[in-house]
Amino acid sequence: MAYKAPVRDLTFILNEVLEIDRYANQPGFADVSSELVGQILEEGAKFAEEVIAPLNRVGDLEGCKWDNGKVTGPTGWKEAYQQMVAAGWPGLSSDPEYGGQGMPAIVGMAFGQMTAAASAAFSMYPGLTHGCYEALHANGSDEQKATYLPKLATGEWGGTMNLTEPQCGTDLGMIRTKAVPNGDGSYSITGQKIWISSGEHDFTDNIIHLVLARIESAPAGIKGISLFVVPKYFVTEDGGVGERNEGAGCAGLEHKMGIHGNATCVMAYDGAKGWLVGQENKGMAAMFVMMNEARLGTGLQGLSIGTAAYQAAAEFAKDRLQGRSLTGPKNPDGPADPIIVHPDVRRMLMEAKAFVEGGQAFILWTALQADLQRSEDEAIATKARDYMGLITPVLKAYLTDKGFHAASLAMQVHGGSGYTEHFPASQYLRDARITMIYEGANGIQALDLVGRKLPSNGGRAIMTWFAEIDAFTAEHGGEGPQKAFVDGLTDAKKKLQEATMWLMQNGMANPDNAGAASTDYLNIFGLTALAYVWAQMALAAQKQIDAGSADPFYANKIATGRYFVERILPDAGAHLAKLKTGADVLMALPAEAF
Amino acid sequence: MAYKAPVRDLTFILNEVLEIDRYANQPGFADVSSELVGQILEEGAKFAEEVIAPLNRVGDLEGCKWDNGKVTGPTGWKEAYQQMVAAGWPGLSSDPEYGGQGMPAIVGMAFGQMTAAASAAFSMYPGLTHGCYEALHANGSDEQKATYLPKLATGEWGGTMNLTEPQCGTDLGMIRTKAVPNGDGSYSITGQKIWISSGEHDFTDNIIHLVLARIESAPAGIKGISLFVVPKYFVTEDGGVGERNEGAGCAGLEHKMGIHGNATCVMAYDGAKGWLVGQENKGMAAMFVMMNEARLGTGLQGLSIGTAAYQAAAEFAKDRLQGRSLTGPKNPDGPADPIIVHPDVRRMLMEAKAFVEGGQAFILWTALQADLQRSEDEAIATKARDYMGLITPVLKAYLTDKGFHAASLAMQVHGGSGYTEHFPASQYLRDARITMIYEGANGIQALDLVGRKLPSNGGRAIMTWFAEIDAFTAEHGGEGPQKAFVDGLTDAKKKLQEATMWLMQNGMANPDNAGAASTDYLNIFGLTALAYVWAQMALAAQKQIDAGSADPFYANKIATGRYFVERILPDAGAHLAKLKTGADVLMALPAEAF
Repeated sequence: MAYKAPVRDLTFILNEVLEIDRYANQPGFADVSSELVGQILEEGAKFAEEVIAPLNRVGDLEGCKWDNGKVTGPTGWKEAYQQMVAAGWPGLSSDPEYGGQGMPAIVGMAFGQMTAAASAAFSMYPGLTHGCYEALHANGSDEQKATYLPKLATGEWGGTMNLTEPQCGTDLGMIRTKAVPNGDGSYSITGQKIWISSGEHDFTDNIIHLVLARIESAPAGIKGISLFVVPKYFVTEDGGVGERNEGAGCAGLEHKMGIHGNATCVMAYDGAKGWLVGQENKGMAAMFVMMNEARLGTGLQGLSIGTAAYQAAAEFAKDRLQGRSLTGPKNPDGPADPIIVHPDVRRMLMEAKAFVEGGQAFILWTALQADLQRSEDEAIATKARDYMGLITPVLKAYLTDKGFHAASLAMQVHGGSGYTEHFPASQYLRDARITMIYEGANGIQALDLVGRKLPSNGGRAIMTWFAEIDAFTAEHGGEGPQKAFVDGLTDAKKKLQEATMWLMQNGMANPDNAGAASTDYLNIFGLTALAYVWAQMALAAQKQIDAGSADPFYANKIATGRYFVERILPDAGAHLAKLKTGADVLMALPAEAF
Repeated sequence: MAYKAPVRDLTFILNEVLEIDRYANQPGFADVSSELVGQILEEGAKFAEEVIAPLNRVGDLEGCKWDNGKVTGPTGWKEAYQQMVAAGWPGLSSDPEYGGQGMPAIVGMAFGQMTAAASAAFSMYPGLTHGCYEALHANGSDEQKATYLPKLATGEWGGTMNLTEPQCGTDLGMIRTKAVPNGDGSYSITGQKIWISSGEHDFTDNIIHLVLARIESAPAGIKGISLFVVPKYFVTEDGGVGERNEGAGCAGLEHKMGIHGNATCVMAYDGAKGWLVGQENKGMAAMFVMMNEARLGTGLQGLSIGTAAYQAAAEFAKDRLQGRSLTGPKNPDGPADPIIVHPDVRRMLMEAKAFVEGGQAFILWTALQADLQRSEDEAIATKARDYMGLITPVLKAYLTDKGFHAASLAMQVHGGSGYTEHFPASQYLRDARITMIYEGANGIQALDLVGRKLPSNGGRAIMTWFAEIDAFTAEHGGEGPQKAFVDGLTDAKKKLQEATMWLMQNGMANPDNAGAASTDYLNIFGLTALAYVWAQMALAAQKQIDAGSADPFYANKIATGRYFVERILPDAGAHLAKLKTGADVLMALPAEAF
């Protein structure tokens, strides 16, 4: 039942589908070959399987402990974290200038799928740290970068993001945490932050908090929010750990349904010393660097938990003997057949498998765009930035919704065993559920998509993407084994186009129409995106078969994709029908009728 | 946030939709008036809200404790159970001959919705007891009935069902528990049973176990299984509690994701004394009385948890201030609007509400069939029995799938708060998940539906039901406010008919086609069933509006139903498309590819 990192699936996507060798002329890819990436992923797989995966269950059972402001992680977690840092994994795709290894984001996201699947709660410690690193890298002063990035890039220090307060999560304009200038360039930060992942722990010598707060006399609402860097320990001149920043404390841990191994903290800032990052009152823009990174990471986490859950279910289904195949015994010498012979068990496994493998490709395709944003070719960079804006909310919401669904299917395959805590299914289900909520609840992602990302630049991003899909279907259509994939993609894209038209016509007249349509729209988008990457994977696999490969990997890949096209894609039609009903049917009741 | 029993919804269904006063000439209904039922439900609501609901959270937090074979329930549960017995609630629909109150099943199922919503784990103690009562009532000898039923009917003693063993859950033909005749009419039972709900506790003076076991030299498989009654304490001649049946012990408790307040026991039978119930080797048929009852009870439980979760989400959405309405502030004097103004929050609440209110009616419509099975009019009784057979798997699987979905939506409405254990959303989600698994996993229900129930008597049951729906749509079609409901029902029924035809044509040729189609088929069935009861509710509500009622209840009911028709029913088309792909797309991969 141990987690097995899907190296073959990932290298297939990187090398045979996306063909990363083609990007050698793009920033970050110069020293990257498919061979090197294969070696990195093999080593990463070993680390995920052998070091991280064994921590997952103990993290769930033990959780973290708070004692008078100090937080201790589950048994063995500190040692594993430090082993990970020593091996250089957290710096895989960080800037070499600060001690990182400078690999492209796409390699980091492939490795990230393994660590998040091995233990979602564990992977959040380096995950938040990397987000903090990115936000300071993009927004920090030279001095701040020099002070914090070397230790954040490598994971020697931890990083956090502090947004939520008891009275506000989604609506950050209501933040009350105050920042008062000390006159020496620093500020005194006072306020309470809740749900701070990895907020306090004993894994690292220092923790660097990024905190949203309001400078006295700042404008009301979102336009008066600034970002501050608040270290747990001040940094000495030589970059070491200095005195304790006494006002920055952890007041307790949240009691949660899952991800017990991650310390979700209540942070109490009581005159903690902090420094402004970027400009006054521009904290939201600065923090959004971290939030966008976190959103991709959360989508990845949803997919990864789904992957691990699927694997556990597949193992169970091959082991558990119960009942006989409807078409005659398949294990005639045993007391019963393994339950994988039953079509409805297959349905659940295929549903999870087709989602998981499609999601892997969707994430890596998106990570490639993240890398291409840095291209010196402005056309390439603009297109990649457009895509990133458009795709981020889809990736976050769709992969977490369906990752949770995959975890639920995995539990169902386990039957009663899955509901007990002796099997891993319960932890996967409980862990997966948070991914639909944090880093912007999925409804917020849907609103971001239809309200902000879609109309941005006159709809340029989606029109570019539609044109790309049209070019693909025109080139690869016609008869043959590709037909089902191209037809499915063409149909899904047509529905997404129709939904987009409906939004343009009806969302202006009544903004509630856009809100009412948003989640169904995002679902059609997610289905179309997966149909696109599945068509690309099927094409690459077919190419190998046509070239005479007898590796069953390719035929299996196509068969798995067929399930996606025939058994998952039909949901697009239902979402389109629901979307077109408009807001009235949702808003008809007065609030007191609920 | 306290649970509020939906008395008005339930009496509307009983009195205005199903019009139970019309059944005064049917067995059990003689003394039943809509007025009396209203009084019973008002009293039942009080009991559920004031006595049971406060136990739910403490049950989740404390769970049950096992100590050397003895099990103690959570604080206050024993006292509440005994208060419930003293008030006569467990005997509400039991046979007056044994001390019950003889109310129809439909009244019991209305009350049951309240207790299961107030605390699912608590309601399982009387629930299992009633199932044990029903199985003995249907299959026991006169002596057994006289011995056990008076105390089971009233809930003074507890009852259990013992089916699952470590090596078999679904496939009961693999049962190994042995029964050896003692020569005095009794048997010595030896074996291990797992996941026995309410298997041991301190609420009652005695617990009566029904145990499936294999008499030595019985035929292999399912045809060699017999049913035994195994009391924890033997019953004295005067019906009191005698000596301990030493061989019947509880070896431990399962550690589960939810329903912590219910003692899920590992039962160890080691030469326990038991008596055969019904005929040798006919144990499965006898146990099916209890299983069918339990399946309806489980569907009810799924719906009920969904109801309570929905209520908690609606309260939260009306209280929590966050963001502003897209159409301008609705709470201009406050710091933000309540989140119920946001269309996507509405979508989640409406989705849960439309399901919950439809499910309430579906359960009560089904419970009416349960009552009519006892009709002296053979045509009425046959039709009711046909319906019960056909509907039971649909009700169990559809209401538990969607009850869990409603609980998940309720968590999503809560945002981050929902993921912490300070709010009730997590418990509802964790508790709801088991209902999809136990009493026959939902995939087994789907297989039972397409493999057994549908073809039974040449498809008589579904043809009768289709004819009933056709008569309804013919009578109430045409233009007017009913049109959307009748059109939705007509379309859903047409799709179900098409799916049925597909099954007949393709399931014979390849049984895997039936298995592959089963879950999608069950979903179309569930959607059609809810479309039917929603059309009936809309009709009854419209009748009141047409008669001049200004009670907003009726307009709200119709608006809620419209959501079902326009925003939930479109799923039927997707399910039909998936169903028609057949088994190949599921079975294409070899087992080792998973």
